Amino acid sequence: MFITFEGLDFCGKSTQVKLLKEYLENKNEKVLVIREPGGTDISESIRSILLDKKNIGMCDETELLLFSASRAQLVKEKILPALEKNIWVISDRFHDSTIAYQSYGRGLPGDFVEKLQSFVIGQAVPALTFFIDLPVEEVFRRMSIVKKHELDRIETSQREFYENVRKGYLQLSQKEKRFRKIDGMLTIEEIHKVIIEEIEKKIRVEA
Amino acid sequence: MFITFEGLDFCGKSTQVKLLKEYLENKNEKVLVIREPGGTDISESIRSILLDKKNIGMCDETELLLFSASRAQLVKEKILPALEKNIWVISDRFHDSTIAYQSYGRGLPGDFVEKLQSFVIGQAVPALTFFIDLPVEEVFRRMSIVKKHELDRIETSQREFYENVRKGYLQLSQKEKRFRKIDGMLTIEEIHKVIIEEIEKKIRVEA
Repeated sequence: MFITFEGLDFCGKSTQVKLLKEYLENKNEKVLVIREPGGTDISESIRSILLDKKNIGMCDETELLLFSASRAQLVKEKILPALEKNIWVISDRFHDSTIAYQSYGRGLPGDFVEKLQSFVIGQAVPALTFFIDLPVEEVFRRMSIVKKHELDRIETSQREFYENVRKGYLQLSQKEKRFRKIDGMLTIEEIHKVIIEEIEKKIRVEA
Repeated sequence: MFITFEGLDFCGKSTQVKLLKEYLENKNEKVLVIREPGGTDISESIRSILLDKKNIGMCDETELLLFSASRAQLVKEKILPALEKNIWVISDRFHDSTIAYQSYGRGLPGDFVEKLQSFVIGQAVPALTFFIDLPVEEVFRRMSIVKKHELDRIETSQREFYENVRKGYLQLSQKEKRFRKIDGMLTIEEIHKVIIEEIEKKIRVEA
């Protein structure tokens, strides 16, 4: 089964990925955990262009296409072969991140961004997508603790950007049946419990 | 004015780009010549991924998206700013190459590849596109001279690929008003003359 995790930074995705991996491995399942961009030699080369600080002049269109190129390679080289071997694939962010951040966040045309993502992922459609939802205020509160910033140093433009990304996720979770929205204010254990329940439910439905 | 040159390898594009550049500079016009992929720092980084021999496992989708990412950056950083300053831009291959090679040649879905290219080039639509047409037999004859191959060493699959790419160009030249198909069997001087005539005609129409 292919499972993706989505949400704003600091929503607790990575912790949940780790807990789910442990849970499945304890049940003797094989698990491949993926973190984007990267994961293949070609995707890592693309990642280094995306993260290189001297590429500050990169336009939004180029950024979108590089994320997509990296993902296309990962799908073909890693995700599809793993799924064919009945290995569980868990991805910390996937194509919904691109729709939420690049389209709702940066304002690139949604229609095109969604078509592009369908082209990129092909058969690799997640069975379940856990969207851990947090109010933007709470994201900034957690961010300020980690980055030791004062809250008021966060600019309005950034606040708007995150509000738009969240709006994107909320719309996706209404549109896409595979989405499971989880309240990110719950404890780590509570969230993990919801995730396990949803997965067990999905397995029963598919059996 | 933005002018692109298209056609199979060995059709004589690069020679014609050079002759046109000289012609325009003799008329005291400023000219920017572009060769893809590349042309900006970011595009050159992408180019090196595309050309790196160790990346032989790159899938067609990734190749398409990397070419497109490189082009998007070139459009924003170089082509549109030059056109705004009334500098002539001449490109040795542009988005039509991607449509002909990746869609007609490699078989990626034409509808999507064309939408992707519209997204990538935005306002940077060529005013004229010179398609220098050659039969595939003639391309292989010229290739065999340069590469010192025997003609019969060229595989059938490669022949089919080039036939499909040519078919793509022929269809584009029927569909797109900006296309000017030129017989690549003419001499270099004859082709150059046709190009100049077409450009002068276009200038008169636009004046």
